[in-house]
Order: sequence, then C-alpha cells, then structure tokens
Amino acid sequence: MTEVQLYDTTLRDGMQGQGMSLSAAEKVRVVHALDALGIRFIEAGFPGSNPKDIELFELLASEALDQATIVAFGMTRRRDMAAEEDPGLFALADCFAPAVCLVGKTWALHLEKVTKVSREENLAMIADSVRHMRDSAGKRVIYDAEHFFDGWRDDDGYALECLRAAIDAGAENVTLCDTNGSSLPHEIADATSAVVAALGSEASVGIHTHNDAECGVANSIAAVRAGADLVQGTVNGFGERTGNANLISILPALQIKLGYECVDPESLLRLTDTAHLIDEICNLMPDPDQPYVGRNAFAHKGGLHAAAVSADARTFEHMKPEEVGNRRETLISELAGKGSVRTIAATSGIDLDDDGAAAAVERLKELEHRGYHYEAADASFELLLRREAGSYVPLFRLESFRVVTEKRADGRVETEATIKLWVGETRYIRTAEGDGPVHALDRALRDAITEQHPEIAKVELTNFKVRILDENHGTGAVTRVLLDSSDGDESWGSIGVSANVIEASWEALVDSLEFAFQPRKSDRPPPPGGRRDQAPAKAGR
Amino acid sequence: MTEVQLYDTTLRDGMQGQGMSLSAAEKVRVVHALDALGIRFIEAGFPGSNPKDIELFELLASEALDQATIVAFGMTRRRDMAAEEDPGLFALADCFAPAVCLVGKTWALHLEKVTKVSREENLAMIADSVRHMRDSAGKRVIYDAEHFFDGWRDDDGYALECLRAAIDAGAENVTLCDTNGSSLPHEIADATSAVVAALGSEASVGIHTHNDAECGVANSIAAVRAGADLVQGTVNGFGERTGNANLISILPALQIKLGYECVDPESLLRLTDTAHLIDEICNLMPDPDQPYVGRNAFAHKGGLHAAAVSADARTFEHMKPEEVGNRRETLISELAGKGSVRTIAATSGIDLDDDGAAAAVERLKELEHRGYHYEAADASFELLLRREAGSYVPLFRLESFRVVTEKRADGRVETEATIKLWVGETRYIRTAEGDGPVHALDRALRDAITEQHPEIAKVELTNFKVRILDENHGTGAVTRVLLDSSDGDESWGSIGVSANVIEASWEALVDSLEFAFQPRKSDRPPPPGGRRDQAPAKAGR
Repeated sequence: MTEVQLYDTTLRDGMQGQGMSLSAAEKVRVVHALDALGIRFIEAGFPGSNPKDIELFELLASEALDQATIVAFGMTRRRDMAAEEDPGLFALADCFAPAVCLVGKTWALHLEKVTKVSREENLAMIADSVRHMRDSAGKRVIYDAEHFFDGWRDDDGYALECLRAAIDAGAENVTLCDTNGSSLPHEIADATSAVVAALGSEASVGIHTHNDAECGVANSIAAVRAGADLVQGTVNGFGERTGNANLISILPALQIKLGYECVDPESLLRLTDTAHLIDEICNLMPDPDQPYVGRNAFAHKGGLHAAAVSADARTFEHMKPEEVGNRRETLISELAGKGSVRTIAATSGIDLDDDGAAAAVERLKELEHRGYHYEAADASFELLLRREAGSYVPLFRLESFRVVTEKRADGRVETEATIKLWVGETRYIRTAEGDGPVHALDRALRDAITEQHPEIAKVELTNFKVRILDENHGTGAVTRVLLDSSDGDESWGSIGVSANVIEASWEALVDSLEFAFQPRKSDRPPPPGGRRDQAPAKAGR
Repeated sequence: MTEVQLYDTTLRDGMQGQGMSLSAAEKVRVVHALDALGIRFIEAGFPGSNPKDIELFELLASEALDQATIVAFGMTRRRDMAAEEDPGLFALADCFAPAVCLVGKTWALHLEKVTKVSREENLAMIADSVRHMRDSAGKRVIYDAEHFFDGWRDDDGYALECLRAAIDAGAENVTLCDTNGSSLPHEIADATSAVVAALGSEASVGIHTHNDAECGVANSIAAVRAGADLVQGTVNGFGERTGNANLISILPALQIKLGYECVDPESLLRLTDTAHLIDEICNLMPDPDQPYVGRNAFAHKGGLHAAAVSADARTFEHMKPEEVGNRRETLISELAGKGSVRTIAATSGIDLDDDGAAAAVERLKELEHRGYHYEAADASFELLLRREAGSYVPLFRLESFRVVTEKRADGRVETEATIKLWVGETRYIRTAEGDGPVHALDRALRDAITEQHPEIAKVELTNFKVRILDENHGTGAVTRVLLDSSDGDESWGSIGVSANVIEASWEALVDSLEFAFQPRKSDRPPPPGGRRDQAPAKAGR
C-alpha cells in the first residue's frame, strides 16, 4: 500500500477563517486530537509572530505526542538579506519544532505585482532559506510553493525551477499550493503528474488546495492519484474565504475508498469524534450534513430504505459508518413502523411493548398530521414514547400562565410573564421579565422549578426557530417552533405546534426541560436521530 | 461552445434534506427564481403523491415561464402491471408537464435485495414505461438510472442494457445517478466516457451525483468533461444525507472556468441573489463560506492582499466576483455602493439624490450590522430608500400597543391585542383577539386603519418566519422576523429585528402594510431581487 502523509494546518491556515480564534491551551488540545487521529505533520503556526503563538510553541515543546511531528511555518528570507540574518528564519531555527514549512513564490505575476522581486532573486531566496534551515538549523524542510498552479499555467518552466531550487537545497518535500483555489481536479492532476515526472524520485510532492470551486477534497485526491504523497488540509475545511481542503473527508476517501495508507485503521474510528471535538473547541456547531462525520451522513428515512439497509447495507450506503466512527440513523417520520419505534425506544432505555409501540405509531401519525415533525426534535419524540410506555415522569403541573408584551407611548417594549404551577404538592407563582415572551416564560418557569430541581439550571436554550405551516393563512396559520437545548455535554431538540406562537413555544420549552429531567440509565447509548453530539446522557440530570 | 443543460431537482430531491419543507406557493417562487437563472429543466416532484404536490402542479400549469421546462418525476411501472394501468404513470401522463423523469433500477444488487425483480422484467419495466410516456402520453422522457455507478462496477454490461432499453423506447436522455454518493471523480469520468462511447450519438447522457464523499461538484464536472451534456443537482446542494451536487457551484465552473454554455451570461449575474433567495425561502441562513456566492467567497484581508488585488485581481482571486453577482471584500452591506442603491431606487420610482444615496448606504450598513438582511425583504428596503429620499408617507402614528397571551387554568389559550394610534388627526383605540400575538396585533391594526384606508383590507399576510441570529444566546438573542404579504396580484417581503419577537413581528407587519400604501407609478417595473412573483404593482393600492 502506498503511504500518504497527512499534514494538518488547522492551527495556521484554518485560523484565517472568519471568526476563528483559539487560545494556546485550546490549540494544544487540537494538537493532541490530531496526534491521536494519526495526522503525521501538525503545523502550529509561526513561532515569532505574536505572544499567543510564542506561548503555544513553549507549551508544545514539553508535550509528548504519540507520532505527530510539529511543524513551524514561516516565509523564505527577505530579499537583499542573508538567510542567517533574517529575523523570521531566526525564530524558526530557534524553536523546538523538528520540521519547518517555508512558503515562497513560484508565480511571476506575484513577483512582479506583489513582492517586486526578480525571478533570479526569488530562486536564491528559496535556495538560501531552505539550505539555512536544513544545514545550519538541522530542520526537516517542506517547501510550500504558493500559487503554484497559477504559476504553472503562466510559465511551467519557472514554476518547476522554483521547486528544483528547494529540492536541491535540501527540502524533503515540495508542496504545490492552489492558493487562490482556482483549479479544477483535472488541472491539478495534469500539473501534479508533470511535476512528479519531472522531479523523479528526488523529492516527495505535496498538495495544498482550497475550496473556492467546491473542489478542495477532489483536488487533493486528484493530486494523490497523480503521485503526490503528502496532503495539506484543515479539520472540517476551516480556512479563509470558502475554506481549505477538508482533511476529514480526504482521509476516508484515500484510505477506505482508494486503499492508501494514511493512518492506523484503528485511529480512523476516531474520525467523527475528532471532527466534532475540534468543532466544539472552536465553538462551532457540527454541520449535520457534513460528509462522513455528520449526523445525517448515514441517515435513512424509514420503510423501504431501512429494510434494504438491514438486508445489505451496500444497497443504500457508500461505506460502513462504523469505519469512521459514525453510525447509521433511521429518521423518525411518518414512514416509521412499529419495529423502528421499538428499536428507538430500546436505545433510549424505554421499555415499550408491542401494544405500546402500536399506540406510539398511531400517536405519531396523528401528531405529524397536525404539523409535528420529529426529525430535529428527538427530545419530544422520546417523551412521546415515554408517555406510551408509562415511564414518563412529569416535572410539574401547570395551572396557568399569562404573558404581556407592551410597547409603551415612549417607544419602550416590555415583556412580563406570570406563571402558576405545582411541583409536587407545592404551588408556585412567579413573574419574570424577559427580552421577549419566550424568554420571560422560560425565566418564570425556571424560577418556579429550580427550588426543587436545581439541576435544571444547567440546561440552556441554544436555538429557536419558528415556521408557519400553512402559509395560506398568514398570521392565523399553525406555527411550528423548534428549540435546541444543551446541558454543556449533550444537546437535544424539542418541538411545539399551535396556532399560537406562544403556546407552541411553551410546549417546546416544557419538552426541553422535561427531557433533561427524565431518569435514565447512566450507560444509555446515544439514541438514534443523531442529536447527541458527544457523550451519552448522564444519569440523574 | 458545447452546451450543457442544467436540471434542477431542489423541489424533489432537495426536499429530502432533513427539515426541508416548502408550501406549494413557495415552490412556485423557487420555480420562477430558477427560470430567471436560466435553468433548463425544473423537476417539480411527483404530481400524484400528496395534496401539496397536486396543488403545486395545478398552480404551475398556469404559470408563464421564460424558458424553463417543468419536469414531473416518477418511477418506472410496477412489475406485473401494464404501463397504461400503472397509477403512477397515469398521474404523470395526466399532468400538464411536457417532460417526465422516470427513475429505474440498473443495479442487480437492488433487483435482488430491494425490488425482487428479475433482470429481464426490469428491462421490460424501463422500456414499457418510457414508451408509454413517449408514445401514448406525448411526453419528453429523461431516464434516471438509479445507482448507476454501483451497478456499473458490478456489471457494466447490464447497466448499459438498462440505458439502451430506455433509449430504444424513446428517452431523449439517460442520466447516470451516483445515488449513494460512493464514487470519486476519476470513477465517474471513466464510467461516463465508456457510456458516451458505447451509446454514441443516440442519446444525451446526464449526471446526477450526491455529496457523500464531498465530491458532488467535482463528480458532475468530471462527467461533463467525459461527455455528459445534462447535469442534475440542487440549489446550494440541498438534499438528504450530505446533500446533492450543488448547481450553484457547478454552473460557474462549467460556464466561466471551462467555457461550456449553460445559461445566458446575463443570467449568471443572478447566481448569488438566487442562491440566497432560495435559502431564505427555505428559512435557512446563507452559508457565508459557500463557494462563489458566500459573503466570504471573495473576502480579502486588508493591506497587502487588498493592494495587490486592486493592482491585478488575478493575484488573489480565482475569478471575478461580479460574474456571479457576488463582490469582493467582506462587506456589511448587501448592496454596497451608492451607485447600486440609486439604481434600485430608480427602478422603484424613488428619486434619490447623491446625498440621499450616501445616507441610505450608511443606514443600510448600520441596520445590517444589527441583523437586518434585505435580500428577502424588498418592501422594507424600499421604505428605507423612501425615508432617505423624503418620499415616505406614513400610514399612521403609533401611540402604544399591548398584547396579552394567557393559558388559562382550563387549558384554553387566549390572545388579545390593544392598540392606540393616530391616522391623520383621528385617534383610534382598538382591541382584537387572535390565534397568536401577531394575528391579534394585525387585526387590531387593520381595524384601526381600514376606516380611512379601506384598500389595506386586500393585503394578506402569506408567510411568517422567525430565526434567532446569535444562536449562543438562546431565547435572549436577537430575533429576525420575515413576513411575506400579497394583495392577490403581487407579493412582497418585509423584515423586523429585535430582541423581542413581538416587537420584530410588529415592525415587519407595519412595513408590510406601509409598503402597500405608498403611492407609486403604475408602470414601475419589478425591482431586482426577484421578489415580485407576478405582475408589476398596480397604481393606487
């Protein structure tokens, strides 16, 4: 099996994405996650650019990694300056990282319009910098040929000269960068083949692509098939503009579909968890539709699909979800039969007999007819099953509520909710203000409940969506509210449907809190529906 | 230039995506947006599956399209049943659509495990169905070869026989489907080349891919380069699991990068607006990092990049953003400079001078920073321009309102709104009940206004969408409300943004009614943004 080395630049190029920012400590967590996944090279940034990156390199110097090599990133020397005098190269030489990645120009247009450096001087800059890193600093050197494919289209001879300058000076790899993301797979394949043929076995060739044409992954695969043996990319495709090539999709394609050796097959099982963990560290919601690792990536509607998949998974699946640490899901929908309802109940630890399952299916149909839609509301669905199974534990009993929103003559808007309810034998009356009616109701409700159920305080509402179901009736139509909630460890969805948006919100709000409150086994596996992004639910929440 | 026909299946396959749901009226809006973009075939669904799709076909039958052909989608006949007796084929034959797409099997594994049909019977099912549609019903026929690439890998001879059965029976196109999304671009290219060579010039060959390997776009491009001349996909890649191939990325790659002729170059300028409009109709947030059309797709960091780009855009851009209706920079504003604001004002019949345009741009930036977003809210945007131009005519002056929603001890929910306002010199106090707070407010407001402005009664609210903008703050976050309204002849959108959903709804409600009330010329053309679905506005509404 041909080996392909994966090179992660999430911590450098990935951080160019809009709104991306990680502390040094968070970056160390990312490094360990990547190391455990089997990524060979982890680019940590430039060790002299800012205090955060300096701190990161200090932290990393004392971290023990299983197999990954930390790479420091910098530029070729400045023009008219000796390599040993260049402060950037000095910082690279001085840092602990055993490998460096030097980026330099290969495209005459850039020499002319951007850096104003002659072609000869550029070649000298590349050679001097690589040689200095290699011979004086003792580093392994990767040369990133910026704008390589644009340069290749303009003047393939000069682009190749730049690569040769790096190799002759001791670079162990030259990586062809599609910096502007302009290329399509056949162009990448053609240029990479030509480079590999021209350079022979002198150096390994790498590929670095961006997703501007939505071809970042395909471009990386095309380059590998054309002879590249190193792939630079980022986790989940983070990066500026439309992002970098997504290593999370490249890895399973290369290893499972094409038989290249990138990581230990055991490590590949961590792919889904790693992708979600790094999303979480970056404070991003995992994309449910993400290839390979998204919660919908192996989702099937009930009925025919589900039956065929259990007969032979190849009928409707492009690969085994378990190989990348993901799992198959059967979406909850009107197509669901008794069998799938019982399966779902079992994975939620609910003991539902045959009659209960039949009743649940009937109830589901009736509710879906009224506009309920459980695909994104696993919590409400679990509560529905619990009611049918007789294992539903009510959190409280509502007597009444009232919400008032007033826009006063001075233009101010104020909202206040009053709620009367019973928790066990105790009656509570609470009034709260809020930014809006749902906020005020949520506050008043929690205020009433937390005295007896302080753990409810951990539950946070993270998203709120409203839709009208029959658009022909305007504001008098039926309203569907979807709420997402989280307790910091896992997240779940709930739903409410009513002609009244306040009533629908209330229903979703109550389901969200009641779901968190239901007693369940501590070893309960994540339920299907894929809403649990992380660890199984904790007992006694 | 070689022509490639784009075939959109957003309304059928796209609706398989989790949580996707559109009304028949919303689907009609999508059809017009696709028609204006130049999409050749628009697949609307199966005309007999449910009341909503039946209604859609009834509506579409009387819509005038510029150039697109509506396609009805269905399956080949059932086994052991004559084509003319099959109820599915009957519905297809009976509907107005001039073209049908028939999906059928080509993979022996599916025949064996899923449909339990012999290879011979499957060929007969294909041939009979195509022939019946073509000869008896007079339809143009496209045959979708489901799981084609999996079938090709298992038994290329049989896969080809299935295609030939369709062509021999009169299909004008056979489309190769990578239904499970298992294939990579080189596999798609190889199989497509072989099919094109084997079929010769007998039929056109299409491609239908999914994004399971994050190669949906690259796979479509690979097929076209291998000889396919029809591409099936969805807007923004909507679809089940990881989505279908994204037509919004395929179109510019084929037309701008590779020189194929897909749409009128003028229509291509609508690409960004179309992608965002359809996101809005689906109540989805446009992806800022989306290739070609995302807000960040042509974003540059300041300094070196920006300077180089103004010297020569090729240095840091893979194509000209204007060619797809996008623009350089990370702009707060959706409509950027003074020039475009004046153009829009002119098409709405608003006389906006240079200072007014500058003030409107400033105001727009400020509002967009607060979460306003005018792509689907043309009415609110026109009112903004009118305010800056001094041609805004207020409909009324609000003093105050109060909305009360009460869930009583008997379980009933009641909502009541009281409103105090001035129309001209007259003060009105009105109270109304409603199904929900917006409904109650709308009723009370109309009740107060119609005495002096009876024409307002014609305006109907047709849709209402709510989204939270900063998802990290749950119910305390900023809420954006989008309202669609119609007077029976045309429809328009308005927007409100506030921490309070009632306040945001109120704002959108007022814009909706005030827009209808503004005096305008009878010959005003529909404004850009494609929100006017029907005739130009009438005078004196």
